[in-house]
Amino acid sequence: MSLTRIHNFAISLDGFATGEPQSAEAPFGHAGQRLHEWMFATRFWDPKGSVGVDNAFAERHSHGFGAEIMGAHKYGPPGWHDDPEWEGWWGANPPFHTPTFVLTHHPRPSLEMEGGTTFHFLDASPTEALAIAQKAAHGQDVRIGGGPSLVRSFLAAGLVDHMHLVQVPIVLGRGVRLWDGLEGLENAYDIETVASPTGVTHLTFTRRDVG
Amino acid sequence: MSLTRIHNFAISLDGFATGEPQSAEAPFGHAGQRLHEWMFATRFWDPKGSVGVDNAFAERHSHGFGAEIMGAHKYGPPGWHDDPEWEGWWGANPPFHTPTFVLTHHPRPSLEMEGGTTFHFLDASPTEALAIAQKAAHGQDVRIGGGPSLVRSFLAAGLVDHMHLVQVPIVLGRGVRLWDGLEGLENAYDIETVASPTGVTHLTFTRRDVG
Repeated sequence: MSLTRIHNFAISLDGFATGEPQSAEAPFGHAGQRLHEWMFATRFWDPKGSVGVDNAFAERHSHGFGAEIMGAHKYGPPGWHDDPEWEGWWGANPPFHTPTFVLTHHPRPSLEMEGGTTFHFLDASPTEALAIAQKAAHGQDVRIGGGPSLVRSFLAAGLVDHMHLVQVPIVLGRGVRLWDGLEGLENAYDIETVASPTGVTHLTFTRRDVG
Repeated sequence: MSLTRIHNFAISLDGFATGEPQSAEAPFGHAGQRLHEWMFATRFWDPKGSVGVDNAFAERHSHGFGAEIMGAHKYGPPGWHDDPEWEGWWGANPPFHTPTFVLTHHPRPSLEMEGGTTFHFLDASPTEALAIAQKAAHGQDVRIGGGPSLVRSFLAAGLVDHMHLVQVPIVLGRGVRLWDGLEGLENAYDIETVASPTGVTHLTFTRRDVG
């Protein structure tokens, strides 16, 4: 069974997954790198990094996936679709290594990168996109890669089997919230919380009807 | 030194400290009792309750205080100020046992209850109210009792020395948020997080300049 999973998705205490304004210079706006410093300090990211609970969670991002779906806001800064040369933030060898579906109202031809990542551009609903990604994943899981608007739309559509959030102890005050419109989300999930000695808190949401 | 402290202040994952609409029948609106079930299960509340980490935090609500400040929304349901007989939610012996200052634009004469609680009604700013409460506390600490709008106004004014939040794993979706307008709050505080086996998470904020 192919599961639909979210990993290493960081939010502030006030629920923002990105600050503002987003730009080529500041993909997370005024949040800078503060939502992801916990991850940069792990072995997952840095060979000299830590191997505690933060790393244990972080590494799950890499295992068992056959496809990723991301939103247009993750693929590039505002206006990227007007730049025919834009190939994402990640250089020649992006860290996805699978078919990667970018949901956008401005589709363009698929783009094959090094290392197994091929970007495909879809103007599709979450349900439609997931069916396409599952087929491409050949029985492996599908990662919902963000940003927050995309994650929220998949949660609202009931399509997410497992979600790992990382709550960072900062108050961003502005940006894009994860939680809006998700009243009662807890009814469908078993939720576990683990506070890391580094100060962040890991929350896992596992859908009750998933074995 | 008299500290200004907040205890047992519960919020949802999305940061709401109360649901909506608030009424005499439903003081926390559609949240019902869900934000406080963790507390009802402790020895602090129930002689048969638990004595683990939730109780350890809960009991701190009771020790060392010489006064409380609460907002008009905590003292009564919408429109309580039109009812001259309204004496709060708590019966003849309220659980404060100190002078208790209600911030309201509709002051009325002070009201002496059993057990040491006297309600005083002030139309005052947070700074003004705190000076009055500190004098009444005779060197003991002052509790900021909520609701969320009151807590937020004291945090925004930089008046809070210590804050204990309890994050409950539910998504309320609507109500009154704690966090709005508090960007950068973390800069003034050391923040600790402890996940309880019961599913809630305790967060403590201790002001860096407090010994």
